[in-house]
Amino acid sequence: MIDLENSTFMEQVEDLSLRKRWADARDMLLLLEPADIAAVLAQLPGDRLPLLYRLLPKELAAEVFVEMEPEEQGVLIRSFSDTELKEVLEELYVDDTVDLIEEMPATVVKRILQHTDPETRRSVNEILKYPEDSAGSIMTTEFVDLKRDMTVADALKRIRRTGSDKETINICYVTDPSRHLLGLVSIRTLVLADEEERIEDIMETNIIAVSTLDDKEDVAQDLSRYDFLAMPVVDKESRLVGIVTIDDAIDVMEEEATEDFELMAAITPTDKPYLRSGVWETVRSRLPWLMLLMLSATFTGIVISSFEDSLAVCSVLIGFIPMLMGTGGNCGNQSSVAVIRALSLNELGFGDLLRVVWKEGRVALVCGVLLAAGNFAKLLLVDRLLLHNGEVTVLVALVICLTLVCTVFCAKVVGCLLPLLAEKIGLDPAVMAAPFISTIVDVLSLLIYFQFATHMLGL
Amino acid sequence: MIDLENSTFMEQVEDLSLRKRWADARDMLLLLEPADIAAVLAQLPGDRLPLLYRLLPKELAAEVFVEMEPEEQGVLIRSFSDTELKEVLEELYVDDTVDLIEEMPATVVKRILQHTDPETRRSVNEILKYPEDSAGSIMTTEFVDLKRDMTVADALKRIRRTGSDKETINICYVTDPSRHLLGLVSIRTLVLADEEERIEDIMETNIIAVSTLDDKEDVAQDLSRYDFLAMPVVDKESRLVGIVTIDDAIDVMEEEATEDFELMAAITPTDKPYLRSGVWETVRSRLPWLMLLMLSATFTGIVISSFEDSLAVCSVLIGFIPMLMGTGGNCGNQSSVAVIRALSLNELGFGDLLRVVWKEGRVALVCGVLLAAGNFAKLLLVDRLLLHNGEVTVLVALVICLTLVCTVFCAKVVGCLLPLLAEKIGLDPAVMAAPFISTIVDVLSLLIYFQFATHMLGL
Repeated sequence: MIDLENSTFMEQVEDLSLRKRWADARDMLLLLEPADIAAVLAQLPGDRLPLLYRLLPKELAAEVFVEMEPEEQGVLIRSFSDTELKEVLEELYVDDTVDLIEEMPATVVKRILQHTDPETRRSVNEILKYPEDSAGSIMTTEFVDLKRDMTVADALKRIRRTGSDKETINICYVTDPSRHLLGLVSIRTLVLADEEERIEDIMETNIIAVSTLDDKEDVAQDLSRYDFLAMPVVDKESRLVGIVTIDDAIDVMEEEATEDFELMAAITPTDKPYLRSGVWETVRSRLPWLMLLMLSATFTGIVISSFEDSLAVCSVLIGFIPMLMGTGGNCGNQSSVAVIRALSLNELGFGDLLRVVWKEGRVALVCGVLLAAGNFAKLLLVDRLLLHNGEVTVLVALVICLTLVCTVFCAKVVGCLLPLLAEKIGLDPAVMAAPFISTIVDVLSLLIYFQFATHMLGL
Repeated sequence: MIDLENSTFMEQVEDLSLRKRWADARDMLLLLEPADIAAVLAQLPGDRLPLLYRLLPKELAAEVFVEMEPEEQGVLIRSFSDTELKEVLEELYVDDTVDLIEEMPATVVKRILQHTDPETRRSVNEILKYPEDSAGSIMTTEFVDLKRDMTVADALKRIRRTGSDKETINICYVTDPSRHLLGLVSIRTLVLADEEERIEDIMETNIIAVSTLDDKEDVAQDLSRYDFLAMPVVDKESRLVGIVTIDDAIDVMEEEATEDFELMAAITPTDKPYLRSGVWETVRSRLPWLMLLMLSATFTGIVISSFEDSLAVCSVLIGFIPMLMGTGGNCGNQSSVAVIRALSLNELGFGDLLRVVWKEGRVALVCGVLLAAGNFAKLLLVDRLLLHNGEVTVLVALVICLTLVCTVFCAKVVGCLLPLLAEKIGLDPAVMAAPFISTIVDVLSLLIYFQFATHMLGL
């Protein structure tokens, strides 16, 4: 196995191509998997990329093409003659053609559609009609369909005849003449079955299928839940229109996880790899959130300002503000992330609201009381006795610790409620994470702090 | 398709079982996939669970058993007679037996091993030897192996004879007599090939394999990168010892993503679903981090205290502390999460350190300057003109905005550096996320703030 992280391989190919030893460079590439060839080619300058790509065997070339990023695909397409373009397009599966069209600029799309055969064009246009995040948009229309009255031998014959153009033959679908899905049969069952058996006797009729308009994230979760290799997609009339294969489902799962990570960190999701996005692009995805959160911190400022005079009298209180806000933020963050993740794994729904709040409420009380106890000890032993900070009286310590208990409680409850409410009103729960919740919890913790301080210290 | 979120189905099964109409309850379950049956059974009280489970057909019963959580598996095993236990164990794949053993208490493990046939026991013990996060620990030893001189017809015959006990027949492995991996051939290739062809002529010899000790997370990423359905696992002598199938790889990917989410939110990862873990368990996974972060906020407190007198003179500065710390934390969070995610998708390595810092540095400068400009306008227009806050002078606004530029810069650079360093020294980069970075950035931002304030305002 060749280690691409060890860059000598990359350098050798680069060097061979520079010295125009194309055949040698190609032979080195042939040792790799398509995804790795695409990665190596991406490192070459734009003029050498098409030259080396052209030397790959036709079928492999198409597999490599699919693995490339849109930039390189664009470079290649612009360098292709019409015949070359047609050849590559013929080798692509329908869903890959759709992905390509979605990424390319309009002029390139026009050229692609011109060189796609009519049947594929029809399928492509059909898939393009579905909403961006739907099962329909990621399915492929190339699956093996069998009839219920076929024998296993008939079925295998049919698979041999048509299978090479299908994205997967691992699961075959049994449909009636009006394309309703009747059952499915795995290639495993077919191979292990007797040749004389009839499909209807061995097919699985207890079928799980998704609808074209289902959310692609849910479809991916279902594939994972049921350990399927492919999921049938049916239209409103229960007619089989396509399948979603496991490799595409994995891509969806990774994308969605990345999207959640980004949203939680207040970044507008992009689908570009980290090092691929330029400085301005990165700024565009981050700055609006920073600006919004910065301006909303104005509220914390207002709360502090309105309490400025009292703080001047008892200035020791100022030093504990960051600790209180920070602990509140961390607590809120913990429960919001736990709930957000459970929501995206479909472990939770809005219906579990009361159970979640009941759980988080109890966790919050235990955590709050223990944190307060720890802090109380630290205040009296470290700050008062060790550091001789006379301003940290027992009463001040009490104010801080009571604030801590209440803040932790509020933070945990807000942290678990907001993602559930976001889910309910159709927002992505992940936007309700750390940055957003911190801002709310900051204000809450200050209000609680100053209430306790005013009443207990008589400020 | 039955919607389990619609709870009537659940209630009906529960009701039928309560009225001892076991056969009817079972017939309802038979409409479901194993994962869903496990979910329904998990809702039943412990005494009814084994009764209903026993009525399931043997093969399905084993599939359902695998999908259950350890609690229910324990309840079932305790209710099984020795014969029943043996029957279930016979149907399990080796990797599922290993999972089970890893979850059960010692006494149950002993009973399980007693009732496993010797060959499986040997495989189980072999897999148990591998470190927890290695490829070896998640592989199965049940794969189809073929010889290079077989014809396609021979191979298919062999698959028919032995295939029903294998976890997958979709990919078959070609080995020499000393078990070295020579090539692989997919069932698709076999089915589409001519019966007379020899395996060595159609097998894929350009093989990607992983070693038993490779990190399971990397193995999962490789399966996803290359769109494989199974990944061969070889030992140090390149002998094929097992395979990791795509469904187990997906589980690893989901677990690792969940672990990253939890670490980033300062939660010690557990592998239990959200509603399954009790209050104390949740407290245990969250409290130590909260305590640690709370105590480390002492440093922010010390910085503020040492500046208390100056703050008393120019108290308007206090109100902006939360905004400055918050913005710093958000900026650090954005870059750390972007880097952490790229690291876990293998898009980045420690070798990219300079590229990453160069990128984040530029992003930070642009973001910092634009945030400062926005804030400057807001301070003078809103705070000074609109709210008539005379204390917000141009000089004060300048102090705040310069602090902002420097804080954003430090935060972004610290945010991208720490995860890369963690990766380098073998820690999970995800622990270097929001809570940890916020604490560092809090201190940094205060130090910067007070430096500017001291020098520019002459405090």
